[in-house]
Amino acid sequence: MIQEENTIVSKANNIEEVRIESKYQAVRNQTEKLCKPLKTEDYVVQPIQDVSPPKWHLAHTTWFFEQFILKPYKKDYQIFNDAYNYIFNSYYESMGEKMLRDHRGNMTRPSTEDVYQFRAYVDQQMLELINSSQFNAELEKLTELGLNHEQQHQELLITDIKYILGSNPLFPVYQQKPEGHHTPLATAQQEYIEVREGVYTIGYQGKGFHYDNEEGQHQAYLHNFRILNRLVTNREYLAFMDAGGYENYDLWLADGRDFVRQHHINAPQYWHKIEGNWFQYTLHGLKKVDLDAPVTHVSHYEADAFARWQGKRLPTEQEWETVSHLARYHQNLHVLHQANFVESNLFHPQALQADTTTETPAQMMGDVWEWTQSAYLPYPFYKRVEGALGEYNGKFMSSQVVLRGGSCATPESHIRTTYRNFFQPDKRWQFTGIRLAEYF
Amino acid sequence: MIQEENTIVSKANNIEEVRIESKYQAVRNQTEKLCKPLKTEDYVVQPIQDVSPPKWHLAHTTWFFEQFILKPYKKDYQIFNDAYNYIFNSYYESMGEKMLRDHRGNMTRPSTEDVYQFRAYVDQQMLELINSSQFNAELEKLTELGLNHEQQHQELLITDIKYILGSNPLFPVYQQKPEGHHTPLATAQQEYIEVREGVYTIGYQGKGFHYDNEEGQHQAYLHNFRILNRLVTNREYLAFMDAGGYENYDLWLADGRDFVRQHHINAPQYWHKIEGNWFQYTLHGLKKVDLDAPVTHVSHYEADAFARWQGKRLPTEQEWETVSHLARYHQNLHVLHQANFVESNLFHPQALQADTTTETPAQMMGDVWEWTQSAYLPYPFYKRVEGALGEYNGKFMSSQVVLRGGSCATPESHIRTTYRNFFQPDKRWQFTGIRLAEYF
Amino acid sequence: MIQEENTIVSKANNIEEVRIESKYQAVRNQTEKLCKPLKTEDYVVQPIQDVSPPKWHLAHTTWFFEQFILKPYKKDYQIFNDAYNYIFNSYYESMGEKMLRDHRGNMTRPSTEDVYQFRAYVDQQMLELINSSQFNAELEKLTELGLNHEQQHQELLITDIKYILGSNPLFPVYQQKPEGHHTPLATAQQEYIEVREGVYTIGYQGKGFHYDNEEGQHQAYLHNFRILNRLVTNREYLAFMDAGGYENYDLWLADGRDFVRQHHINAPQYWHKIEGNWFQYTLHGLKKVDLDAPVTHVSHYEADAFARWQGKRLPTEQEWETVSHLARYHQNLHVLHQANFVESNLFHPQALQADTTTETPAQMMGDVWEWTQSAYLPYPFYKRVEGALGEYNGKFMSSQVVLRGGSCATPESHIRTTYRNFFQPDKRWQFTGIRLAEYF
Amino acid sequence: MIQEENTIVSKANNIEEVRIESKYQAVRNQTEKLCKPLKTEDYVVQPIQDVSPPKWHLAHTTWFFEQFILKPYKKDYQIFNDAYNYIFNSYYESMGEKMLRDHRGNMTRPSTEDVYQFRAYVDQQMLELINSSQFNAELEKLTELGLNHEQQHQELLITDIKYILGSNPLFPVYQQKPEGHHTPLATAQQEYIEVREGVYTIGYQGKGFHYDNEEGQHQAYLHNFRILNRLVTNREYLAFMDAGGYENYDLWLADGRDFVRQHHINAPQYWHKIEGNWFQYTLHGLKKVDLDAPVTHVSHYEADAFARWQGKRLPTEQEWETVSHLARYHQNLHVLHQANFVESNLFHPQALQADTTTETPAQMMGDVWEWTQSAYLPYPFYKRVEGALGEYNGKFMSSQVVLRGGSCATPESHIRTTYRNFFQPDKRWQFTGIRLAEYF
Repeated sequence: MIQEENTIVSKANNIEEVRIESKYQAVRNQTEKLCKPLKTEDYVVQPIQDVSPPKWHLAHTTWFFEQFILKPYKKDYQIFNDAYNYIFNSYYESMGEKMLRDHRGNMTRPSTEDVYQFRAYVDQQMLELINSSQFNAELEKLTELGLNHEQQHQELLITDIKYILGSNPLFPVYQQKPEGHHTPLATAQQEYIEVREGVYTIGYQGKGFHYDNEEGQHQAYLHNFRILNRLVTNREYLAFMDAGGYENYDLWLADGRDFVRQHHINAPQYWHKIEGNWFQYTLHGLKKVDLDAPVTHVSHYEADAFARWQGKRLPTEQEWETVSHLARYHQNLHVLHQANFVESNLFHPQALQADTTTETPAQMMGDVWEWTQSAYLPYPFYKRVEGALGEYNGKFMSSQVVLRGGSCATPESHIRTTYRNFFQPDKRWQFTGIRLAEYF
Repeated sequence: MIQEENTIVSKANNIEEVRIESKYQAVRNQTEKLCKPLKTEDYVVQPIQDVSPPKWHLAHTTWFFEQFILKPYKKDYQIFNDAYNYIFNSYYESMGEKMLRDHRGNMTRPSTEDVYQFRAYVDQQMLELINSSQFNAELEKLTELGLNHEQQHQELLITDIKYILGSNPLFPVYQQKPEGHHTPLATAQQEYIEVREGVYTIGYQGKGFHYDNEEGQHQAYLHNFRILNRLVTNREYLAFMDAGGYENYDLWLADGRDFVRQHHINAPQYWHKIEGNWFQYTLHGLKKVDLDAPVTHVSHYEADAFARWQGKRLPTEQEWETVSHLARYHQNLHVLHQANFVESNLFHPQALQADTTTETPAQMMGDVWEWTQSAYLPYPFYKRVEGALGEYNGKFMSSQVVLRGGSCATPESHIRTTYRNFFQPDKRWQFTGIRLAEYF
Repeated sequence: MIQEENTIVSKANNIEEVRIESKYQAVRNQTEKLCKPLKTEDYVVQPIQDVSPPKWHLAHTTWFFEQFILKPYKKDYQIFNDAYNYIFNSYYESMGEKMLRDHRGNMTRPSTEDVYQFRAYVDQQMLELINSSQFNAELEKLTELGLNHEQQHQELLITDIKYILGSNPLFPVYQQKPEGHHTPLATAQQEYIEVREGVYTIGYQGKGFHYDNEEGQHQAYLHNFRILNRLVTNREYLAFMDAGGYENYDLWLADGRDFVRQHHINAPQYWHKIEGNWFQYTLHGLKKVDLDAPVTHVSHYEADAFARWQGKRLPTEQEWETVSHLARYHQNLHVLHQANFVESNLFHPQALQADTTTETPAQMMGDVWEWTQSAYLPYPFYKRVEGALGEYNGKFMSSQVVLRGGSCATPESHIRTTYRNFFQPDKRWQFTGIRLAEYF
Repeated sequence: MIQEENTIVSKANNIEEVRIESKYQAVRNQTEKLCKPLKTEDYVVQPIQDVSPPKWHLAHTTWFFEQFILKPYKKDYQIFNDAYNYIFNSYYESMGEKMLRDHRGNMTRPSTEDVYQFRAYVDQQMLELINSSQFNAELEKLTELGLNHEQQHQELLITDIKYILGSNPLFPVYQQKPEGHHTPLATAQQEYIEVREGVYTIGYQGKGFHYDNEEGQHQAYLHNFRILNRLVTNREYLAFMDAGGYENYDLWLADGRDFVRQHHINAPQYWHKIEGNWFQYTLHGLKKVDLDAPVTHVSHYEADAFARWQGKRLPTEQEWETVSHLARYHQNLHVLHQANFVESNLFHPQALQADTTTETPAQMMGDVWEWTQSAYLPYPFYKRVEGALGEYNGKFMSSQVVLRGGSCATPESHIRTTYRNFFQPDKRWQFTGIRLAEYF
């Protein structure tokens, strides 16, 4: 769901523990903090269609507050710049012409400085509104929606920045690797967790913020299955590569085979073989591949082929969610080991203390998004929401694959066991990884 | 599953009532009968990648018997022509180079006559083998598999011939419309059949021929739903068109919107507006659109948009299969009206007697393939079969949509309630239609 | 000028020695004779855009007579089939919609038989017209234009048939090689013919049939140059290949380098390396490359790169024409050796008697079309002709290169020293070759 | 010749009046002055392949001095950054891998600031070298070549900046229009200058700097022709548009027709119809089209079609050069009126004084580049220069069209009557215009 144009209609009806004002400021500041390491030039480009310029993310998330809250609800609100609606509107076809996604990388104006001014202006206006008598429960919900929307874009900011810097032959460092940071995954033994067949409840069940596509408790019948307690590592993936996995066509989906052939793919994205050794571009720069870290930046096709090579399969999203619930609520269940794979510590400062992690529930989440074998489809009773915000609610439910979990680039408060992320099966620029499953 | 390159591994272990020899001759003759109306020129071309030349279908189905039965099992078998393996092998990457699909339409040689000689030669050899002491249960299974493979290609022959003739400005007639043939659909009242929620059994349960992808009984939890007793008609679809359905972007999946835009699609395939009236190319030639006939030659995108416009949705494949079983085994259930939409009477002679049809069970099948909302994915416990035949078993389980039922071009003996046909959501050259469903 | 859509307006004002009726029959019969070796399937396909189906050539040349002569001039003429104007009209945008060139290969109807009936009908009508009192000088001119148009298509028929059969993995034979046919080129010593600088007259100067683009005598200043007495041979071209000519980027025009790279070209078209030996598909089937025959089926880029490798260049069209005139009118000039390279003897039966050829003037012509270094541009005073026939007169005078001479596929009566053939520099399916020149 | 990758080998053997040091500083400073109005973001992008990022131009011109002068000739020279050779090398295939042109716009690093430091470093080194005893005639020639190379890129800088800003919906102003600037073209009467047929001398004849492609005096025979004394105006071009010129297919070259159709072109580049009026993006921002100014930003196809519509043609480059010489050396010849069309006054400050212009010789030059009808081909005796600099000398002599004159973006010292600029016939982002000619 971190996809740029995706379902953002929520049903936020929980009691906010954090006051909305602080939350607003925290999220908005975090976005700008993520951009601190950038040079002005980095804000502008769009090397592939999937990747939006950081400047665009900064402005688009701001436009959201102007368009859906300030303009319709704030008294006497003055639009910052009429042209911005045209330039920074990403999706809503019903609201005026949109700039073609492909041309975002050509828009040198408004400048980055102009965009920061736009942010400052909207922030000031939003804070005025929040502190006014006008601000009611409905506006709070919309604000929270805007903040969740911005958090999605925070993840995209990181993956897009990684792409922009990672396709530069100078391999610039975004952030220095913290001292003493290491990955304890090597010590995690492969272990399979078994789940018995039966009817399980799926879907969001609480009262907090969530998206419409995860809403609607419903039943699903699961058959006996096992799932691996940890993610597939680079070491394991390298064994697949060395065994000729990319060339063994029996292992691949037909589309996947065409994809790796056509693009001459023989390793995860950002991998470079230099004088016989595999290196990987990370946000800390070009590094030797860490064999004990989870493999990431693989497409669904590669995840599927790897699983087949292992005589296993990817889990369904229902299996994933069920195991995740069990892991969360039953401390006596075998604990899933966390990889502590943290390329960026912007969201997960605590993840650096490896020794604490075994006590954390919901261990399956936070390293990489995990490809499932499930197509992204509506849950039973799902209805597209009416109106401008809802225009596009279910519109991506075609030819995409669900990912579960969350990655080191996902804001922590944004991770839920019911969260349904989705991408086309060939996408590799997100932090995507592999977890194995099988029936028994 | 009529897709050319698809799952063909079966588990045929039933007691054959018809002797295999008669069956072999019947199926092989039927293929040639389908080609009788063609001129030599019609056998050669490939106007789009999806459509194979009829000559290729004739040869490829024959090559299958030579490659998988005669060559490995018949003593002293002489290959008809070594080059044919290269030219008529459609898929099996592990068995020598394959001709690129795109170039099939450039192969003027071997000639059609040569191909018919190839067929005659292989038929003679097969009949010798069938009547020899060498012919055992395993060979019978393989033979039956080859015949089912050929039946799939019979359906493709019809849809491909329709495409070849239908894109010709002279709109040639393939077959004259039989006298007195009419469609009683207009009298069928819309009625919704309700099914209560619970755990249902899905998958092939008998002992007859079936494909591996429909195998494996398993449970699925269905929620309360209703399904329409008949297919959507041209009249209803025209109302959608007249209401601006193609331009109302709220109704469309994002991919679907791009698809109709890019290809300037504003009606089902083969429809032509001539002096204000809608005509439709059929195998009987260009005809005024029959408003009471089921709409056909629509993509999944169009089916989905139409359903949304109606405030409904497409059924899942599990719902479809469940209703189909109920319709089959419970005569007191409200009977589904059959459309008796028969563009080609080559397979369904009895369908011309409209009055008899209400007595037929499994009424949902035989008019058009019905788009579901289900992605084509493996059933629980599904395993790819090993070896050359099995190489590609699950390889299409990505980005495709399941269709259920069967069409006027499907051999009748090839229709099963558990049959899983599948195509990419933009495909329109098959006989594809729409049935509505909803939760309650 | 053998290009399908090209300048066909002529100024035929000579006294015809051969009666027009005989000529009409001879040319029309010759077209059908060229198709005799074909199977019905061969008539239909269009493997690349440049190559038209033989059926289309047969019909298009016939349509020309119907459209421009019978329809406007023959009393009470009944159109054979209205739809044919749409299907077989290749170019004239002002005369009704044209079928896209790319789709010619999908038109299985009208059948080849229908097209032959179309030809017979038009021939009968034309002969009636020719023998009627209605037939005047203007109609005779138009008829002659139609016949020259058909002769252009005869050459295309041969090259297109070669492409269709030559891209078939069975390498079918179009015509058996005649007994005793050989190429005496090996004995021809390289010799350079020198021409002194000065003002030379260029352009058609006689009274016979010619095209508008060669018309208009005018002056051109030529500088001292030499030109080779014979064509470049396969032996010489192979030396270029063996010396790494295709990989030596210094030798290539930038566009040419991109072209050979993108299409992985490393030899002339139709060349195949089989077990270490070079073979060449010819109309006689797949044959070992004849080292003493002229190299053919090379693009302008390859011709240019070869010449640069030799420290030479291609001649300009003015140089070529000037030398050709000198060779023609001055018997005491050193005679150019003819290659007697005859892949097809359909037009040049006498070419089989090698000993007679040295007596023939205009020796430069008849083996392969020779790439010049001249862009195809209008001669001084050139004016586009008005009206439908003239619509496209100069419209190809952009980004094309002039070829001079004529090939073994060019009807002999169609060869003139002033004839300006032209193609894009990447075209290779015509019989195209290389002659070297240099300044001194 | 302002094309980025073009012929840059010169034969500079004149006595320099300006000392090379001053010249070096002047040219280098001018490049940076041109970039003064830019924001950092503007330096980075590449909206189409033809347009390079300004940052790239700044670095590439600097790389030239490092690569061809400092590295091979300056003692103990330290390369500024090894990676820059890879990143800023535009063409020389023989010198290490080149970045694909298409990816220039994705290179956010090195930053603009880094590039300015690169410039400062190289400038310091170059000045040291120039003032050292090491600096000899050969190095001076190379330096001059580097400066001419940089001047070419100055023109590209302006046209590329115009494209970058002009495709931005905010239409940013690059430079305010100077007060009192106007175009006196309206008063210029159309007048045709006649030239008598005969042999004329073509090619560079002096001793100053020039490129190899204009070198080599030679003779050309010209026929009687007339040429218009001024450029075609927007008013005249608008009449062509209003008369349906873009839709009248008789007027177009076949390639041109396809080009305008495919790209939906119906006006010069940068023209926008806003509420019924034509506006034009200029470096001064969006302005109403000035009817008396010369039309610019048209392709060769449009120029050719316009000329045909007028019953005229484009001049050949030989005609253009001949008239230009006559205009230059014969003050009593009818003077060509200069348009004084000056969108950018960075190079032509004097052009603002309209009243002085009639006294200037060589009036044909300085407004817009003028499309000729000549293909870009080698002059007689032209030889590609050996070695790295010469690798690509003639490599663009294919499928391009010669332009003559020079534009308001061309450095004045870079304009010569013999200068051969060239572009593909579809290019429109340069300042290109139309002058009419005809035979008589």
